[in-house]
Order: sequence, then structure tokens, then C-alpha cells
Amino acid sequence: MSAAILPDPVALTKALIACDSVTPARGVVFDVLEAALTPLGFAVERFTAGEAPDGPVENLLAVRGHDGPHVAFAGHLDVVPPGAGWSADPFAGEERGGLLYGRGAVDMKGAVAAFVAAAAQVSADAGTLSLIITGDEEGPALHGTRALIERMAARGIRPDFCLVGEPTSVARLGDTIKIGRRGSVNIWIDVPGQQGHVAYPHLADNPITRLIAILAEIEGLVLDDGTDWFQPSNIEVTDLNVGNPAHNVIPGRAQARLSIRFNDLHRGADLAARIEAIAHKHTPAAIVTPLISGEAFLTQPGALSDAIGDAIEAATGTRPELSTSGGTSDARFLSVLCPTAEFGLVNATMHKLDEAVAVADLHRLTEIYADIATRLFRG
Amino acid sequence: MSAAILPDPVALTKALIACDSVTPARGVVFDVLEAALTPLGFAVERFTAGEAPDGPVENLLAVRGHDGPHVAFAGHLDVVPPGAGWSADPFAGEERGGLLYGRGAVDMKGAVAAFVAAAAQVSADAGTLSLIITGDEEGPALHGTRALIERMAARGIRPDFCLVGEPTSVARLGDTIKIGRRGSVNIWIDVPGQQGHVAYPHLADNPITRLIAILAEIEGLVLDDGTDWFQPSNIEVTDLNVGNPAHNVIPGRAQARLSIRFNDLHRGADLAARIEAIAHKHTPAAIVTPLISGEAFLTQPGALSDAIGDAIEAATGTRPELSTSGGTSDARFLSVLCPTAEFGLVNATMHKLDEAVAVADLHRLTEIYADIATRLFRG
Repeated sequence: MSAAILPDPVALTKALIACDSVTPARGVVFDVLEAALTPLGFAVERFTAGEAPDGPVENLLAVRGHDGPHVAFAGHLDVVPPGAGWSADPFAGEERGGLLYGRGAVDMKGAVAAFVAAAAQVSADAGTLSLIITGDEEGPALHGTRALIERMAARGIRPDFCLVGEPTSVARLGDTIKIGRRGSVNIWIDVPGQQGHVAYPHLADNPITRLIAILAEIEGLVLDDGTDWFQPSNIEVTDLNVGNPAHNVIPGRAQARLSIRFNDLHRGADLAARIEAIAHKHTPAAIVTPLISGEAFLTQPGALSDAIGDAIEAATGTRPELSTSGGTSDARFLSVLCPTAEFGLVNATMHKLDEAVAVADLHRLTEIYADIATRLFRG
Repeated sequence: MSAAILPDPVALTKALIACDSVTPARGVVFDVLEAALTPLGFAVERFTAGEAPDGPVENLLAVRGHDGPHVAFAGHLDVVPPGAGWSADPFAGEERGGLLYGRGAVDMKGAVAAFVAAAAQVSADAGTLSLIITGDEEGPALHGTRALIERMAARGIRPDFCLVGEPTSVARLGDTIKIGRRGSVNIWIDVPGQQGHVAYPHLADNPITRLIAILAEIEGLVLDDGTDWFQPSNIEVTDLNVGNPAHNVIPGRAQARLSIRFNDLHRGADLAARIEAIAHKHTPAAIVTPLISGEAFLTQPGALSDAIGDAIEAATGTRPELSTSGGTSDARFLSVLCPTAEFGLVNATMHKLDEAVAVADLHRLTEIYADIATRLFRG
């Protein structure tokens, strides 16, 4: 393949931004990606998964080669809604003052474009390279990366390393990578009581009294003091709901919702069981409903983080911080397959109005991604 | 006046029930009362007070005589809405099986009719007798008995004893009278915080955490152990409100509402100040808004409760329990004028479908009311 047809990460980012792909993404935006990958020798498989209301979702699995170490680049083509108030069309991909504007510029069409441009720079014989790209990372994420992992299992495809292109950089490209993420569980606590008149409290059973006792005990929990790589696990009560308009009535039901972000000392189900035990101690009739969004994961510093750090240092002169902060990402699913880390663009404008990426960063990210793959192929 | 024209409490109750007077009451129901009082020698003054949305409210002040002890009968002609599901027209005043059915039968058109019938039995020369009747006891009560008290002050009218005809009897006519009522204050606590993402709690300030700490401390308060005449003062949290639909967002505001029913060891403003101090200890920015519905009052057992008890015993053979339980009533306003107590019909059906009074009870209540006035006039 001649240098003339090497894909340009800036042009490809623009082409991807031009496809409105508010989550869940399907169709044209995947056509653009497939058209860029096929000339580079990738075998591209596309499929949709799920049904309304959480789907259908389009996913793309592209593999080049079958020998040597297998490095996977993972990411998503769906974007959050642009919202009103942009200074230009959020799907125009306008370049101004060295910045390329558009919804998805940093989260993460720019990184997907850099994956492709990097693939073009890496010898196809050096190892197996794959792209694992979903159209539902910003939405419920029920039929996205999870469906891709099932498809890979069915095809016998298992990477040795996975690099997720989420925008992990904070102030400067390459200052931060993620080697883990906290887990997340939301828990609903529903306390039934006995409605009655406030003047006759002995004839009623105020569920709020019980809920306050439950929540006060939960607020006193210290889950852990953090680890070498994680901050302490944290519980926030995010909602209270009684909805009793009558001043003189003791209500019949009180509800709270918790969000627990936890490190790799815990599993979501264990935390839910602890919360349930506290609730049932105060009121056996309490209904406790957990929804585990993701378990914590940690890729211990090693070959993958070394390769990423070395490549970033070679390009920028400084080594990245190894972080586990922030919300969840699809890395939580991929980490069960192989060592997984996340590195991508500067996240200052992600999910905001006038999301924008520095054009220079797109070129530099391409260079770093190519270097990471090369280093991992080399072993 | 001849015995032939003595008003019949049953016929008058029926006539009052026939006037739909869902709170606030005005007009015809007062015409009926006025027409019954005038022949008995009462000077009747009617006036409306207040404006929308809490008014206008009609009130009636009737006075007979100006010498000797002044006994006031107090009550209301408004009723709560009948609701659907009655076995007969709630405004028909149907008599069936010894019971007279209708909205207001026991709360408290029956007692107002008994006031009138009792007045007819009491010598006009024995003392001063008045009726203090409002059209707004069941509603906001802003322009009812309070306005009557102002009007009485303007006229230089001040009773020596006041008997409120609320339905205080529980199982049998005369088993219970009220010599006091607890006070009532509702308090809203509004805790501001700093909204943020649950994954970055250090960048937010969760108002629910502070609210739980405030409420847990409030739940631990013991206001008192009760008194000879009152049960312990009691705090109930009656509402919690955050209204945060987003699972991953720490909300910016959290609210709770308390209802405190308190005995005569407390005043509403002092209790509000205590709650505010607790709230401000946890979060100085908390906004605490009290609404005092009524202070506690107690008429120490004495001449008034003796006269009521003696009259009940003479008619029924048993003495009443002196109670201070239950919600607030207009007695809270009248008690600032003079010793005030409450005694009326059996309250089992008040505010319910098929509200009904025993016809025999209307006659017996008339007899007891007349006896009470006679005893108090006698001194």
C-alpha cells in the first residue's frame, strides 16, 4: 500500500462527525468506518443486536491477521445528543483555529479515526490487529460491547491486549491513562409503612422514620480506605421520594436511591447484600433492588501500561499518570478478556457544547496508537 | 315563650344538613340558623371575612342578655366534602333506624342545632348566652373563628366560659370531653448543595447527606415525657423530596417536611427555633420554614369541666374522660379568651361516608348543653 492512500485522521474524524450518530448508532457512520478499514486489509463484520427500547444497536468487528500477539483497539461511534447552543452545526466538523469542532470529536470519533490511521502505519505482518467498535456506549450499553464479546467468543477471537480509546487525557494529550475503573451499583430502597394521621401516630407506622435510620447507618459505613490504585469506595444517596402532599398525614411508603462507586475490593452483589441487611435490620419489609452497572476492574501495571507509557513518553516527553478515577466505560466488559487499559484525547469538552479536538492531537494520537501496537507486537 | 315553639334539635339538624355548606360556608345555612335564633331573643350579627383563595367566609355572632356569667357555645356550619359512595343523598337528612344521616350530622350541625334547642330551654334571665359560629373550621380557618374573636373584641364581648361543640364522644355520648389540645407546627427544611456527578463526589456537595444527618438528629429528640394532661409531644417527618431522575447525578437540593404535635410545655416558635438550630449546625445554608397551625392549650380542670362533667353524669350516669388527644380545633383560638372545653356527639362517622347521628343523642345533647349553661350561670 502506498503512502498516498494512508488515511488522514483529521479527514476521517470529519467524515465520522458528519454522520449524526446520537446513541444508539447505526448505518452510515459504520459505512464510513468500514470503507476506511477494508482497504487496510481488515475483515469487517457488522451486525445489529437488541430490540427496542434498548436497541437495535449496530456493532462492528474488524480483524487483520491471525498470527503473533493480538492487539485490539476498542471504542464507540455513538455520541450523546448535541443539545442546543453550539456556535456552529455540531455535525459539520468545522475546523477553526487549529481545532476541529463537532459532537464526538473527542468522545470518541477522533480516537476511532486515529485507530484506523494508526493501523495503516503498522505492518500487517507484525501481529493481529482488531477494532471492536460499538454503536451503544453512551446509552444503556446492553447490546453493544457485550454483544461484541459474545460474537468474538463465537468466532474464537481473543485479544492479548485491549486499548480503549476513551478520552482519558485531562489537560494535555497523554497526561493520564486509565488502568482500571471503579464499579457502579445503584440500589433502590423502598420502605413500606402504615399510613395514618399525624395526630394519632400510634395508629400509624411512619416509613420515613425507618428510612432515616437505614440511611443514617449507611452514611456511617466506611467501605474501605482505598488501595494502591483506587480511591476509597463511595456511597451517595442520590434520591429521596415520598411525595406526600398532606401536611397532617403520615405517609404509607418512603423510597431512596443510592449510587455506590466501588473499587476492586468489592463486588456489586456483595455491596447490595450489605445494604439489604441494613435495611432489613430496621424494617424486614423493606424492598431492596440493586442494579449493577459494572464491576470494578484493574489491569495491574505491566506490559500494556508500559507500552502505552513508553509510546506516550516517546511522543510527548512525559509519562502518563496511571489512573482509575471517573465513571464506568466499556473497558469493564473487555477487561474480562485480557489486560485492558484506556487512553485517548483530552476530555475537557466531552459531552459539552462546542466539543472540539486539537487537529495536532489527532496526528499525535495516531502516532502514539501506532507505536503502542508496534511495541506490543514486538513483545 | 310557649313550649309549643321550642325548636326541635332533630328538625333543625335536618334543616341545616339540607343546606349544602361544603367549606367555606356562606348564605342559606346561616339564614336557617339566624331564623332559629332570632325568636329566642338573640341579637344576631352576620359578616363575611377574607377573600379568595381562603375566603370569603361567613361568620355569625349571636348574643342574648348582658348580665351575669357569660357562657358561649362555639362551633361551625361548614362541612367537609361528602365524597362519592353514600347510601343516600348526603344532603337529604334521611332518618333511618333511629339514625339521622347526612354530611355534618355529627361534625357539627347536630351540635349547633342542640345549642339552639338548649338555649330555648335556658332562662334568658339566668345569664348571658352567645353562639360563636363560623363557616370555616374545616378549611384554612384563617377568616373564621379568628375573625369572630376580633369582632367580639371590637364589640367588647368577652365570655367567661366557652363550650365548643366538636364531636368529642368516642363510643358513647358523653364518654369524652376535651380540656385541651396539642399544638401543631409544620416545618419545611430545604437543604441546598452542589450538584455533580456521582463519580466525582469531591466536586459536589450532596445535600441528602446533610439532610439525613439533620433528620437523624431530629429523630433522636425527646421533647418531653408528657404531662398530667398531655401525652408526650411528637415529631413526624411527613415528606421527603429530592426529585432527581438521574442515577449518576448528586442532586443540588433536598427537602423534608416535619409535623410536630406538642403539648403545653412548648410553644411553636421555640420548637421551630430548635429545629432550625439543628439544621444550621449541619448546614448553615439550610432554609427552615415553620408554619404554626396552633399553639397547645389546656384549660385546667375546674368550674367549666366540672359543670360539663356534672351535666353529663346527671344525664348518662357516668363521668367523661378529660382528654387532650386528637388534632387541632378552633378551641385553640377561643382558649385565649376564657376557660374553653369541647364536648359534642359521637365522632365515629365524622368525615366519613354515611355520617350519621343517633336521634336520641340529639335530644340528650340538647338536655346536657342546657344543663351545662344552667350550672355555669348558677356559679
